[in-house]
Amino acid sequence: MTTSSPVMNVSKQDYKNLHQLSLNGQLLSSVSQLLEWDQETYMPTDAESIRSEQLKLLAGLSHQERISSKFTEALEKLIDLKSGNIIATGLNEAQNSALKRWRRDYIIDTALPAQFVEEFAQLSSISQSAWRKARKEQSFEQFAPFLDKIISMSRKKAELIGYKDHPYDALLDLYEPETTTKEISTLFATLGTDISALLKKISSTEQVVDSFLFGDFDHKKQLELGMSLLNELGYARSRGRLDISVHPFSASMHPTDSRITTRIHATSLMSNISTVMHEAGHALYEMGLPVDQYGSPLGQPISYGMHESQSRWWETRIGKSKAFCEYYLPRLQKSFPDELDKISLDQFYKAINRAQASLIRVEADEVSYPLHIVLRFELERALIDGSLSVRDIPEAWNAKMNELLGVVPKNNSEGCLQDVHWSMGAFGYFPSYALGNIYASHIFPAFEQSYPDWKARLATGEFLFIKEWLNQNVHRYGRQYTTQELMEKITQQPFTANAYTDYLTNKYSEIYGL
Amino acid sequence: MTTSSPVMNVSKQDYKNLHQLSLNGQLLSSVSQLLEWDQETYMPTDAESIRSEQLKLLAGLSHQERISSKFTEALEKLIDLKSGNIIATGLNEAQNSALKRWRRDYIIDTALPAQFVEEFAQLSSISQSAWRKARKEQSFEQFAPFLDKIISMSRKKAELIGYKDHPYDALLDLYEPETTTKEISTLFATLGTDISALLKKISSTEQVVDSFLFGDFDHKKQLELGMSLLNELGYARSRGRLDISVHPFSASMHPTDSRITTRIHATSLMSNISTVMHEAGHALYEMGLPVDQYGSPLGQPISYGMHESQSRWWETRIGKSKAFCEYYLPRLQKSFPDELDKISLDQFYKAINRAQASLIRVEADEVSYPLHIVLRFELERALIDGSLSVRDIPEAWNAKMNELLGVVPKNNSEGCLQDVHWSMGAFGYFPSYALGNIYASHIFPAFEQSYPDWKARLATGEFLFIKEWLNQNVHRYGRQYTTQELMEKITQQPFTANAYTDYLTNKYSEIYGL
Repeated sequence: MTTSSPVMNVSKQDYKNLHQLSLNGQLLSSVSQLLEWDQETYMPTDAESIRSEQLKLLAGLSHQERISSKFTEALEKLIDLKSGNIIATGLNEAQNSALKRWRRDYIIDTALPAQFVEEFAQLSSISQSAWRKARKEQSFEQFAPFLDKIISMSRKKAELIGYKDHPYDALLDLYEPETTTKEISTLFATLGTDISALLKKISSTEQVVDSFLFGDFDHKKQLELGMSLLNELGYARSRGRLDISVHPFSASMHPTDSRITTRIHATSLMSNISTVMHEAGHALYEMGLPVDQYGSPLGQPISYGMHESQSRWWETRIGKSKAFCEYYLPRLQKSFPDELDKISLDQFYKAINRAQASLIRVEADEVSYPLHIVLRFELERALIDGSLSVRDIPEAWNAKMNELLGVVPKNNSEGCLQDVHWSMGAFGYFPSYALGNIYASHIFPAFEQSYPDWKARLATGEFLFIKEWLNQNVHRYGRQYTTQELMEKITQQPFTANAYTDYLTNKYSEIYGL
Repeated sequence: MTTSSPVMNVSKQDYKNLHQLSLNGQLLSSVSQLLEWDQETYMPTDAESIRSEQLKLLAGLSHQERISSKFTEALEKLIDLKSGNIIATGLNEAQNSALKRWRRDYIIDTALPAQFVEEFAQLSSISQSAWRKARKEQSFEQFAPFLDKIISMSRKKAELIGYKDHPYDALLDLYEPETTTKEISTLFATLGTDISALLKKISSTEQVVDSFLFGDFDHKKQLELGMSLLNELGYARSRGRLDISVHPFSASMHPTDSRITTRIHATSLMSNISTVMHEAGHALYEMGLPVDQYGSPLGQPISYGMHESQSRWWETRIGKSKAFCEYYLPRLQKSFPDELDKISLDQFYKAINRAQASLIRVEADEVSYPLHIVLRFELERALIDGSLSVRDIPEAWNAKMNELLGVVPKNNSEGCLQDVHWSMGAFGYFPSYALGNIYASHIFPAFEQSYPDWKARLATGEFLFIKEWLNQNVHRYGRQYTTQELMEKITQQPFTANAYTDYLTNKYSEIYGL
C-alpha cells in the first residue's frame, strides 16, 4: 500500500502553478514569433514601423511575465534561487531538471534590467537598417559606429549576466547553455585545421560537374516538389505551412503551429530542396516537443546548436546522402526530364555534394561551411575581449578567409558585411551553426545502429522511421537533459568532434577519390 | 505677443502622457486583430486551440492596460470621471472630444469585471463551436442551451454597464454609441413597413434577367479583377493585402496595415466584385484615419454603423450605380467575352440590382437586406427584455420572415441559425448593418453637391475623388464627433432615414418600372 505524503502533494501543486504562470511568457513569445513570420511573408511593406512597436511591446510584456513577483514566488518555493538546490520533494527527475532550467532562465532575465533590454532592442533595430544600407553600398565605415555600440552593449550584457573565465562565455551561454569559450576554442581550432586541409586537398583535385543543376526550372513545379517532399518527411500540413520568403526560416508558435519558408530560384534546382529539408528539420523538432509541456522547459528545444543539428541532419546527412539520391533523382527526372534524364545516380550525387571554397556562408557546401563559422567565432571572441577593434575587422576577416578557405573577398559586402547577426546584437550565436553539424554527426551512428538498413529504406522513399527515431531520442525530452547529457544518453559515448571530421573526410575522399 | 500659461502646458503634457498610455491597449488589440486575420487565412487547422489561448491572454492584457491605475490617474487629471466635465485647460476642441470618448470607454471597461470578460470570452468560444455543429445538423435544440446562457450573460452585461430605459440600450451603445432602443425601434418600424411594401411591389412585377452573371468564371481572372479594382479605388497595396477566406472580412491593425479578404465563386461573377468593394470600403476608412492619432480616440472609427456606411457606400452607392456599370461592364467583357459580349449596359445594370426576397442575409440584395436586419433587431430586443424566450425563436423568426419578406425557411439552418453573431455574444451589433445604409444615404447628397459630375467621372473610371471626399469629410476626424454630429456637419441637415427609403424607392421604381 502506498500513500502520498501531504508535502509531496504540495510540491506537485506548486509545480503545476509554476507551469501555469510560465505559460503566459511563452504565449507572448509565440505571438511575437507569429508577427515575425508575418513580417517576412505577408505583411504590407508600409507596416514596418507599427510592427516594430508591436514587437517591442510584446517583448517587454513577455519579459515582465518572466520576472513577475508571482512567478518569482512560485519558483522560489521549489528551488533555491541562490544555490540551485531543489526544495521541492516528490517531483520526478524530469520536473527537477525543469526547475533548474527555469532558474537558469530566470537568472538571465533578472540580470538584464528592463531599460537595458529595451535600449538593446532599439539599437538592434536601428543597426539592422544601417547594416542593410552599408551592405548595399559596400561601406563598412557606415556600419562601424553602430557595430561599436553593439559591441560595447554586448560587453555590458556579458558583465550583467556574469561569467567565470571569458566575457564571451556569458553570450555563448545564451545560445548554447553550459558551453565555454575555452571548449569551443579547442574544438574549433582542431576543426579549422582539419577541414581546411581537407578543402585544400579537394581544391587540388579534379572538380566534379554540377552544371546540370543550374538552368531554368519552373517555379510551380519546384514548389510542388517542396510540398510533396514535406508530406513524405512526416511534416503534418495540418500543423504547419510552407511559404516563400527572401531569407528562408522556420517559425514555431507551438507544436501545432510550426511553419517554414523556402526560396525558389528558377536557375538553381537544389536550393529549394535543400532549404525545405533544412527548415523541415527545425520544424519537426518543434512539432515533436510534448504538447502537454508547452510553457515549461520540458516543452522547449535544448539549444540553438541542437536545433541546428536537426536541420543539418535532414539537409545533409539525409538530403545529401547517396540513398536519398537513389530515391529522389527519379522523382526529379519525372519533373524535369529534359534537364536530368541523362544524368546518372553517381553524377547527381557528386554534383549536389560539390565542394569549393566560396565567400558566402549561406551558400557554402558541407566542407567549407564550418570554416565560415570558425572565422566568425574567432573574430567575435576577439571583439568581445577587446583584442580586436571594430575598424580592424575587414583586414582580420580577409586574412582569416585566406588562411582557412584560400579565398579573399573583393569587397566588404561579400566579406564582413554579409551576415545580419552582428547588427542584431546576436554575438554568441554563430558557434551553434557548426555545433549543429558536430552534434548531428556524433548522434548519427546511434541512429545507424538502430536502423542498419536505413540506406535501403531511404532509397525506397521511406522517411517516417527517421523522424520517429528523432522524436523518440531527441525531441520528446525538451530541455530535460543538457546537450552533452542527451548526446551521451543517445550514444553511450563521451562527446567529441571526431565523428564529424571523420564523416566529412570519408564522404569527400570517396567523392573526390582523395 | 502671446504667452502660454504654465497651466496650459501642464494639460498638454498630461494629454500626451494619456495618449502614450492608451497606445499599449490599442497595440495589443491590433495584435489580436492580426491573429484573427491569420486564423481565417493561413493558420494551420490544428492550431485552433493554441490560437484561442493566445487571443484570450491578449484580450486580458489589453483590458488590464485600459483600466490600469496609471491610465486611470492620467485620465482623471484631465476629465472628471463622474460628471464628465473637462478639467484640462488649453486643449483644442478635438482633444476635449477625445477625453469624452476615453472616459466613455473607460466607464464600460471598468464596469465589466475581468472575470466576467474572461467567462464571456470562453462562453462565446464554446458557443461558436456549438453553433457551427447545430447549423450543420439543422438542430436549433442543440444550440438553444448555449444561447440561453449567452442571453443571460448579455443581460448581466447590460446590468453591469447600466442603461436608462431598456437593457438593450446598454448593448446597442457598445456598437452604436448614443443611440437608443427607442430611436432604433421607431426608425426600423417605418423602415420595415416601407421597404417591405417596396419589395412586395417588386415581387408582383416582371423579374429582371440575371442568369448571365452565373456560369463558370475563371478563378485567377476573377482574382486579378479584384486586385486591379482595389488599385483603382485608391487602396494602397503597400498598406494592405487581398486574400481569400470562407467568410470575407476586413482586419485593420493600423492605417499602414489594413487588410481585406474576398471569396471567389466560379459560378458567380459579381460576388467577388461586390465583396472587394464592400471590404475596401471598410479598409479605406481605417487607412484614412490620422496616423499621428493612433492609440487615441481621434485615430479610431466612430461606430460600427459608420464603418458599415463606408463599406455599403462603395458596394452599393458606387458599385451598383449605372455610372459604375458604364465603366466596368467593358472591363468585364474584356475578361469574359463569351459570357458578356452581348449584354447591354441596361441589362447589366438591372441584373446586378435584381431584387428578390430570399432567406439568407449575406446574399440579400439592396432592397431585402434591411428587412433581415429589422427582423434580427426585433428579436434581439425581445430576447433581452425577456418578452421572447429562446425556445420560441424559430417560430418568431419564421413568422417575421413571412411578414417582412414573404418567404419562410424550410429549416432553422437557413433561418434563425444562419448568422454567427448570437453565438459570439454580439447582441446589439445587427442594427449597425442597417444604420450603415441609412447613414450612407443621408450623407450621399452632400457628396453629390460637391461633385455634381460624379457620375460622368465614375463612368470613365475615376474613383480617387470619391475616396478623397470620404477622407476629408468622414475619415480624418476619427471619433472627434458623434455619428449624429458628423452627419449634421457634413449635410447641414438633421438626420432622418428618409434619404435611404427615397433612394431605394427611386432606384427600384426605375429598374422595375413601378
